[in-house]
Amino acid sequence: MSKNKTLRIGLIGCGFMGRTHSNGYNRIKNFFPELVYQPELKAVCSRNADKVKAFAEQWGYASTETDWKALIARDDIDAIDICTPNDSHAEIAIAAAAKGKMILCEKPLARTVAEGQAMVDAVEKARVANTVWYNYRRLPAVTLAKQLIDSGKLGKIFHYRANFLQDWTISPELPQGGEGLWRLDVDAAGSGVTGDLLAHCIDTAMWLNGGITDVSAVTETFIKERVHQASGKVQKVGIDDACIFHCHFENGSLGLFESTRYARGHKALYTFEINGEHASIRWDLHDLNRLEYFDHRDDSIVRGWRSILVTDGDQPYMKRWWVPGLSIGYEHSFVHQAADFLKSLETGEPCHPTFKDALETQKVCEAVIDSANTRSWKDTNVKGWLK
Amino acid sequence: MSKNKTLRIGLIGCGFMGRTHSNGYNRIKNFFPELVYQPELKAVCSRNADKVKAFAEQWGYASTETDWKALIARDDIDAIDICTPNDSHAEIAIAAAAKGKMILCEKPLARTVAEGQAMVDAVEKARVANTVWYNYRRLPAVTLAKQLIDSGKLGKIFHYRANFLQDWTISPELPQGGEGLWRLDVDAAGSGVTGDLLAHCIDTAMWLNGGITDVSAVTETFIKERVHQASGKVQKVGIDDACIFHCHFENGSLGLFESTRYARGHKALYTFEINGEHASIRWDLHDLNRLEYFDHRDDSIVRGWRSILVTDGDQPYMKRWWVPGLSIGYEHSFVHQAADFLKSLETGEPCHPTFKDALETQKVCEAVIDSANTRSWKDTNVKGWLK
Amino acid sequence: MSKNKTLRIGLIGCGFMGRTHSNGYNRIKNFFPELVYQPELKAVCSRNADKVKAFAEQWGYASTETDWKALIARDDIDAIDICTPNDSHAEIAIAAAAKGKMILCEKPLARTVAEGQAMVDAVEKARVANTVWYNYRRLPAVTLAKQLIDSGKLGKIFHYRANFLQDWTISPELPQGGEGLWRLDVDAAGSGVTGDLLAHCIDTAMWLNGGITDVSAVTETFIKERVHQASGKVQKVGIDDACIFHCHFENGSLGLFESTRYARGHKALYTFEINGEHASIRWDLHDLNRLEYFDHRDDSIVRGWRSILVTDGDQPYMKRWWVPGLSIGYEHSFVHQAADFLKSLETGEPCHPTFKDALETQKVCEAVIDSANTRSWKDTNVKGWLK
Amino acid sequence: MSKNKTLRIGLIGCGFMGRTHSNGYNRIKNFFPELVYQPELKAVCSRNADKVKAFAEQWGYASTETDWKALIARDDIDAIDICTPNDSHAEIAIAAAAKGKMILCEKPLARTVAEGQAMVDAVEKARVANTVWYNYRRLPAVTLAKQLIDSGKLGKIFHYRANFLQDWTISPELPQGGEGLWRLDVDAAGSGVTGDLLAHCIDTAMWLNGGITDVSAVTETFIKERVHQASGKVQKVGIDDACIFHCHFENGSLGLFESTRYARGHKALYTFEINGEHASIRWDLHDLNRLEYFDHRDDSIVRGWRSILVTDGDQPYMKRWWVPGLSIGYEHSFVHQAADFLKSLETGEPCHPTFKDALETQKVCEAVIDSANTRSWKDTNVKGWLK
Repeated sequence: MSKNKTLRIGLIGCGFMGRTHSNGYNRIKNFFPELVYQPELKAVCSRNADKVKAFAEQWGYASTETDWKALIARDDIDAIDICTPNDSHAEIAIAAAAKGKMILCEKPLARTVAEGQAMVDAVEKARVANTVWYNYRRLPAVTLAKQLIDSGKLGKIFHYRANFLQDWTISPELPQGGEGLWRLDVDAAGSGVTGDLLAHCIDTAMWLNGGITDVSAVTETFIKERVHQASGKVQKVGIDDACIFHCHFENGSLGLFESTRYARGHKALYTFEINGEHASIRWDLHDLNRLEYFDHRDDSIVRGWRSILVTDGDQPYMKRWWVPGLSIGYEHSFVHQAADFLKSLETGEPCHPTFKDALETQKVCEAVIDSANTRSWKDTNVKGWLK
Repeated sequence: MSKNKTLRIGLIGCGFMGRTHSNGYNRIKNFFPELVYQPELKAVCSRNADKVKAFAEQWGYASTETDWKALIARDDIDAIDICTPNDSHAEIAIAAAAKGKMILCEKPLARTVAEGQAMVDAVEKARVANTVWYNYRRLPAVTLAKQLIDSGKLGKIFHYRANFLQDWTISPELPQGGEGLWRLDVDAAGSGVTGDLLAHCIDTAMWLNGGITDVSAVTETFIKERVHQASGKVQKVGIDDACIFHCHFENGSLGLFESTRYARGHKALYTFEINGEHASIRWDLHDLNRLEYFDHRDDSIVRGWRSILVTDGDQPYMKRWWVPGLSIGYEHSFVHQAADFLKSLETGEPCHPTFKDALETQKVCEAVIDSANTRSWKDTNVKGWLK
Repeated sequence: MSKNKTLRIGLIGCGFMGRTHSNGYNRIKNFFPELVYQPELKAVCSRNADKVKAFAEQWGYASTETDWKALIARDDIDAIDICTPNDSHAEIAIAAAAKGKMILCEKPLARTVAEGQAMVDAVEKARVANTVWYNYRRLPAVTLAKQLIDSGKLGKIFHYRANFLQDWTISPELPQGGEGLWRLDVDAAGSGVTGDLLAHCIDTAMWLNGGITDVSAVTETFIKERVHQASGKVQKVGIDDACIFHCHFENGSLGLFESTRYARGHKALYTFEINGEHASIRWDLHDLNRLEYFDHRDDSIVRGWRSILVTDGDQPYMKRWWVPGLSIGYEHSFVHQAADFLKSLETGEPCHPTFKDALETQKVCEAVIDSANTRSWKDTNVKGWLK
Repeated sequence: MSKNKTLRIGLIGCGFMGRTHSNGYNRIKNFFPELVYQPELKAVCSRNADKVKAFAEQWGYASTETDWKALIARDDIDAIDICTPNDSHAEIAIAAAAKGKMILCEKPLARTVAEGQAMVDAVEKARVANTVWYNYRRLPAVTLAKQLIDSGKLGKIFHYRANFLQDWTISPELPQGGEGLWRLDVDAAGSGVTGDLLAHCIDTAMWLNGGITDVSAVTETFIKERVHQASGKVQKVGIDDACIFHCHFENGSLGLFESTRYARGHKALYTFEINGEHASIRWDLHDLNRLEYFDHRDDSIVRGWRSILVTDGDQPYMKRWWVPGLSIGYEHSFVHQAADFLKSLETGEPCHPTFKDALETQKVCEAVIDSANTRSWKDTNVKGWLK
């Protein structure tokens, strides 16, 4: 296929997200062979030379770097994929944009709105393609929800509710900071569940239901002190272990969001439900190939929630995979996002969520934390999400 | 309400079914007040004088008897309700019919087709109203299934499957026979799960899908010997602990039935599913207010099994009870059957399943046991169920 | 049973709740025959003479009244059961207490804390037995949840969340006020979903998890004007159509509550979930015989949410009913509460929730409405719920 | 990693299974990097030169062939993977074994026991590694079921039931034979749902519960004639559209199996349940990351079916993938089987199911068809499955 072009990728970060993105790129040739731009795994960067070499070998990167500045300085790289902890997103992205690199940044965009704004300014100034990996949008059932809402099937929306429940930090023995645990360190992460988990819920919510205009939140830190892995000392925990907020959307509907890492029995229970005048939708990450749908216009005696198995070829993304009834998993959301980004290079259209979109999510996150800290409602300054 | 007439009832048997029937009659005035015939609990009969008096006090029977022959001889009784073990159904029913009593008989009709045929002959000769308490037909979700099938929504039927799974006889320490355990004694019960549980499944199946014409069955008795409560001796177990059969229906569909008391984890899991050309239905006694329904004619991208909560006033029987969303329970099936029997006295129409209908179920049960014993297919001689 | 005493009941109100309470009393003799106090349905009262006579006939009341003052003046009545709209609870209860009557009052206790406080003062001064029909406590699965929590199985509690979702008022054509619709009239009801639905959730929550100390709420009225049935005129809607709040409990856990009548697809979806250090529980009114339970102490490879069918004799209330696996329904919660009230007359212990308990729920409801109106956190002044 | 050796693979067949196997091989380096043998996609073979070239390009095969005999004659191929229709399995496998090639054969092993026996003889004579792609064994929840059973948690087994329900052939307009539809042509497929779907169920069942000794079956062909794609003519349909059988296992338990392509509403509903003295297990392909487990030894008041999300690192295969709570899909079963085959080359142990194991499944399939045709019980001649 001589018509193919390659997108030469430089990945920074070899953790959990480095793996999911690498897998995403590696599946493109098999499942999206017709894309003009095909990814080429040119280089991967991480501080530990041994570790980065092993990662490169495992995932098929042609070379390695241990200094991200060296990576972004390379001429043979078209796009930088940022999979580092949140505290380095802004610095790397701004520097990469200055070098004219396209940027694919892991969510959340940044720790703060100020950082995020600087990142948006940088990519807009450099006019480089950019996207943020809010991957759950690209699960087929979630994309189907978007199609149903946009088609008007739900009518006027009254309610949106979402939660993201985990239980992995209940033990007080768990340390904070460092390898695999930077999400518990407020300096590295910026916040706790708000930036890590609610940011996903907010991205999906605004995509499906428009801008969130004001919020009233409460946060809690159940374990007040933990050993820090770096210092070995007991230090105050700065993150939010749990966060709940209610809000208004631009369209007049009420929103309700909750996230915690203290919900015993739930590993990654991301669910949302949206109630409209005519129809409602709900979804659950633990059963990700399914969308539940209720349509009040069905005949009354046989009206009920429909359990839609989203595995047929006429449903989003599914003609790429197997046959009706056979499920895909979590990792496929990243394959779809990689494919959509590559496709956007063909069409010239942005690959949403862009940095600009993700900045809006950042504004909501920041208003949430601010609201919780001040025990008061806060405006988000998100406006005009739905054009 | 001077227009009311009373149906004077004489109940025989104070066990589990005596309670469910008595409760059924006692609810009529509250929930079916418009019925011309209202039940009057005239007498209850059981061998133990103390026990029957306590039962009469608890359930509101005006008098007691300890000999069923005395009961059926009374002039102030219109209808006899038979709640005794299966081995006395035929004798009592035939004698009661001879006295001109209406008869409501607990299922199964009898132990054998021969007994059942004699009972049918007796009520037909006496021209007395009669019904058999295959109560599950009258759960609202099951009646809704009947309406949907009769309306043609499913189209041509390909498959019917049902099971009834329990786990209460797994312990070898459980005795057989006597108080509360006569269902394990083949002499009293006639058969094991076939007559006790599969009879329910067969009644529902033929009501919904027409006659079963031939069967191929296997049975198993996992515990070969048990202490008999009466003799105190270890005796051979004569009942079937488990029974599976497949079959053909008159309409060309395939049937599959299974029942056991050795399915660890299931208390009373009666489920059925019916697959048609256009639509399918399934139901589960453990969630009895719900009917699941799949309609292939729904738009393909939002097609799925509908979970119909059968609690609205336009669904069968439900306008009698509370408000949408609020569930009823197992016992209500008996209230509905009592009401339907009383209504049938107004209209002059039979209250199905009649003895004649139940004899057809008996034929299938007998063919099933016969098939299992001979390891061969057996014709049921059921014909023309669907007129 | 000459040892039996009777509790002579006078019921006020013939609506939905009049029916559920009457059914509750009528089942006592059949299912709780050993109770020393057995209910006697002495009189029922409602303004419309024809309607009240029909109701008395249907439910077995010996006499009727059309003026509640006449009813409470009668010497042959021991207990007054208040099933009228919320705006008359206080006046009737205070007058009945002054006459020395026991009082069973439908929830919510009152429209306001001030009304509720006067009611508490009245029953305490009169020293009369009293209870409020927060019936959901008495569903077996909910009572089992209480037992599990009190036994310490959950450990320290982190989260409590509940919602109560309905969809019956979405049409703008629905009038407010009058027969069957007084719940939409703020004058009669006091509030919308807060007093009608969230009050249930709050009662259960404080019973299971202790006092709620402060709240932050938002309410919404989606349909701003409706025809009033009484006046026939279009009038402003004064109730809350939807209400969401988060809160703190005395034990340090976070609470999250939501109720609405605009959640398309849900009839009466009352659910709660409680997450503890060691175990979690959840429950759903649409599947009321089930309790879900997760225990982290289970072996890790077979750890999962347990779906407990609460129908066995060793589970709360269930030895009264049928056999394992056979479900009961919504109405049984009222039977249980009637039985527990009658039992409390034997033991001399209060039948919770008493008026005093229900006043605490009222305080939370009032703080919720106040919080929503002022867009600020409010203290509830509930203290020491858990002794 | 110079220690790596390669297994040079030659794939025959570019259909659905060609894709799943190719994907399986392609994932090994990323997810099983420590395996000594790593697959090398040396060649792919299919009759159509254009199609095979496109397939090779998409999946990364280094070369192509259009004649399978040429492929198996090549010296640079270690293992032949057979993904052709069933009618060529035997011929190819026997020829490949004669060339000393290892063989990975798609299921079912063959059309008949005679073909299968010849294949077993061939690989045993050639002493070449061999396996059959009964992939569902390798889904983590199914493998967990195996571990639980082998650990004795279930105790004595009473019941095994499985079904595999689809609905894709209901339309009489669907042709038989040819591209994508050879499964409907009895000459190519050997049988209908028995070999295509029940073979999976039988393989799992005998792996989990031991040998099936005798069977009683019924089959049905609902659509009697279809256009054949090759001839363009209407021809008799020779396959079984549906098949039901019951059976005995060597351990004395009863089995029940059903498969059909006429169960409206089900795409690929493969479920099984196994009931033991102490515990039961059930599983469903539509929710493949979950295993349901009931343990009677749990405390009675909190006993219930556990819904185990099989995504943790201590559960089978899952440490290879993401983090707890994040699901995998259908395709991963093939990755696991490829990995297990490669691992078996290191250890020298067979990779089950081998041809010999799959022949036992073939015997059951053939007995099933024979039983249905003769309306009689048939012995399978499967013995000693459980050593």
